[in-house]
Amino acid sequence: MSVSTAAADQSVCTPLPVLGRDVTVPLVTGGEVSYAALDYAASAPALQRVWDDVAAYAPYYGSVHRGAGYLSQLSTDLFENARKTVAEFLGCRPADQVIFTRSTTDSLNLLARAIPADCEVFVFETEHHASLLPWQDARVTYLDAPRTPRQAVETLERALAGRDPYGPALVCVTGASNVTGELWPVRELAAAAHAHGARIVLDAAQLAPHHPVDLRDLDVDWIAFSGHKLYAPFGSGVLAGRADWLQAAEPYLAGGGASRRVTRRQDGGVAVEWHETAARHEAGSPNVIGAYAIASACKALTEAGWDTLVAREQHLIAKVREGLAEVPEVRVLSLFGDDAPRVGVLSFVVEGWNSSHFAAALSAEYGIGVRDGLFCAHPLVRTLLGSDPQTQGECGAPEAAPGEKSLNAIRVSFGAGTPDEHVERFVNAVRELVAEGAKWQYRTEDGRCVPAV
Amino acid sequence: MSVSTAAADQSVCTPLPVLGRDVTVPLVTGGEVSYAALDYAASAPALQRVWDDVAAYAPYYGSVHRGAGYLSQLSTDLFENARKTVAEFLGCRPADQVIFTRSTTDSLNLLARAIPADCEVFVFETEHHASLLPWQDARVTYLDAPRTPRQAVETLERALAGRDPYGPALVCVTGASNVTGELWPVRELAAAAHAHGARIVLDAAQLAPHHPVDLRDLDVDWIAFSGHKLYAPFGSGVLAGRADWLQAAEPYLAGGGASRRVTRRQDGGVAVEWHETAARHEAGSPNVIGAYAIASACKALTEAGWDTLVAREQHLIAKVREGLAEVPEVRVLSLFGDDAPRVGVLSFVVEGWNSSHFAAALSAEYGIGVRDGLFCAHPLVRTLLGSDPQTQGECGAPEAAPGEKSLNAIRVSFGAGTPDEHVERFVNAVRELVAEGAKWQYRTEDGRCVPAV
Repeated sequence: MSVSTAAADQSVCTPLPVLGRDVTVPLVTGGEVSYAALDYAASAPALQRVWDDVAAYAPYYGSVHRGAGYLSQLSTDLFENARKTVAEFLGCRPADQVIFTRSTTDSLNLLARAIPADCEVFVFETEHHASLLPWQDARVTYLDAPRTPRQAVETLERALAGRDPYGPALVCVTGASNVTGELWPVRELAAAAHAHGARIVLDAAQLAPHHPVDLRDLDVDWIAFSGHKLYAPFGSGVLAGRADWLQAAEPYLAGGGASRRVTRRQDGGVAVEWHETAARHEAGSPNVIGAYAIASACKALTEAGWDTLVAREQHLIAKVREGLAEVPEVRVLSLFGDDAPRVGVLSFVVEGWNSSHFAAALSAEYGIGVRDGLFCAHPLVRTLLGSDPQTQGECGAPEAAPGEKSLNAIRVSFGAGTPDEHVERFVNAVRELVAEGAKWQYRTEDGRCVPAV
Repeated sequence: MSVSTAAADQSVCTPLPVLGRDVTVPLVTGGEVSYAALDYAASAPALQRVWDDVAAYAPYYGSVHRGAGYLSQLSTDLFENARKTVAEFLGCRPADQVIFTRSTTDSLNLLARAIPADCEVFVFETEHHASLLPWQDARVTYLDAPRTPRQAVETLERALAGRDPYGPALVCVTGASNVTGELWPVRELAAAAHAHGARIVLDAAQLAPHHPVDLRDLDVDWIAFSGHKLYAPFGSGVLAGRADWLQAAEPYLAGGGASRRVTRRQDGGVAVEWHETAARHEAGSPNVIGAYAIASACKALTEAGWDTLVAREQHLIAKVREGLAEVPEVRVLSLFGDDAPRVGVLSFVVEGWNSSHFAAALSAEYGIGVRDGLFCAHPLVRTLLGSDPQTQGECGAPEAAPGEKSLNAIRVSFGAGTPDEHVERFVNAVRELVAEGAKWQYRTEDGRCVPAV
């Protein structure tokens, strides 16, 4: 029995070309099958357009900034234009800075080091560790998981109401959950933050690849996202937003590029004048290819058109959710309920199945790549599973034995490069595995769940 | 008049294929010429082999670590094997850690955050800012520029003799100067450090692309280098060496990947158990392509053979030095003198010339890409130029007007991909510019020296 595609709007069914779309992988049961990459929320494949742009540029790569040669100047222009492209993509204000980092994690750690010394930070326990953990040197208030978007806003408002209204404060919030895919009420949270004199940074790692993200429209102070989730896996990320705290902070890294003038002092020490532009926090040779790749992805997504991209993704989400709803053993994890708007990220557990084994079987028997674990959002996944932190699994340790109640979950995620066939195969595989069991035995070895030989 | 090639050993005259070797650039005087990339010390072109490896892998790129899919597991293996390849390339001890960073700057900032709280740091003022500046939170002793390798060792020994021998201490030293290309006596400095109970980190950014670097042979505690100078410009670098300080330190970035288990505490806070492996300092999705590219470069250089690579580079160095020696207006900058062993990095000034204009003319009239400025080693360049820090130029500001005495220098640098023709063209261009003057006018615009129209 296969998933019905009758309702699909054919006009939204063309995925954007991505690298790896022709890759086949072996099945433990024999033969090969095209690989279904359904772990976009961790890392998405490169858009073909991004790869083509990088490949066309690579022979022209040169040292940026003070290089006097033609390729150096071309590369410097390319790098600085990438900054402008990202600023446009995010709807930045004229005075905003766009800093190239290595990832969302890096961007939020940079911001954490740039906040004023007495800054209070407010963060929901439901955040990805990249948003949850960088603030530990500040006074952090961890907010309990809300069960509706409205409750999220109320929880934040209550917490902010109790703070010193004259001191600096920062709210850090995700745009779309990396576990449930559910959208957070960013605009409302931003309004609440600003009403209480706090600033807000948006973790757009899971939002930017799936949705238009406009800094001014959302009225957030900073946005962070990663290239490798935005179809540009070349080691770059972005922090964009207000310049003042960034300019006032110590440079994120000490080194060349960030330093304008360095002199020995009379007392034998060293005096440094730092730049106040984005370069202040970009010491070392920048990752030009990584920045260019992100800019290329921004252009490709904009040109493809968000209406089309969102419609297509919603069509895939509906397929997956409708398919899984027909399997009573599957429990989809949700914070905000069935009606919450969401992106193509969905986690679930299967009754009677160890999640690691289930994910291993999807890979080995169906050529489908999903993820199992806690998705670097341990408190959230535990809340959703209703499990005890003390018995809960940890990152890097798949569940060792089958059990009635899973301590980990399985996540399926997809995006602009995903063809219908991948999600159809996924839904059929879930149904088949639940109905018939795995065709193979699996065991845990070196931190992985693998087919037993 | 052209540089003689009669003495050249043809057996060492084949450069390794690099991207961009067929790129032509326009000349302000008309026509096009193949681009001579002579700014390797800032960023080297990618080896063709590195590019081919990256291009072959790119369709198989997948999310690493907890991804259950075939490509995720393949990518995880590739990433962890890259670590092993780098460990072999550097001659690491079995217990050493190899951490992928974004650059040498990042590697040294990571180490600076991992040293014990009471650690003393000893660093020569001659270092690149990436080695000079990350230690400012520690008790730093800046050592005056030595004029011989022996004086370097004596200076360090004297400084270390005065320290508390029971407290932790770290010496940070370059392997090859990014300004003069001169080799530093790393083995002797390491012995001096260890004799006084100090540890030593080697900044191998300029050494590793040109010379075999063996951690055990040199007996250094850590080595840092960058992919973009090692023919692998994909946003990655390396810090490799002793695990103890790294394991004891707070994670460099807080986030997923570095965290093993995160729980809410009874008091509402968050408790984190961090990994103790390299992952501790690699939070966020790793730059798999960047790490793989570095491993590919390590293999390519090893397979090409260091004897051949070094012989070929020494042959190019001799050509450049002999050529420049015939131009009395050229003054080559040197700390250790003519007999010092060196890599293919050389800085100079030209009497009566503004360095920025000279570099601009090399680009616009000869298609040669060099660099002008202070090379992120301000105190060293000032020492070599004998100039006053107060009137000295700064990064990002080329000299505005011609003058008798240059405040900046010009740097030429090359490596495994450089054909003889590039250095011959460079030497001839220097001779011609000095003898005949520039054919064009140059002016400063937007921080660049460009042909005047």
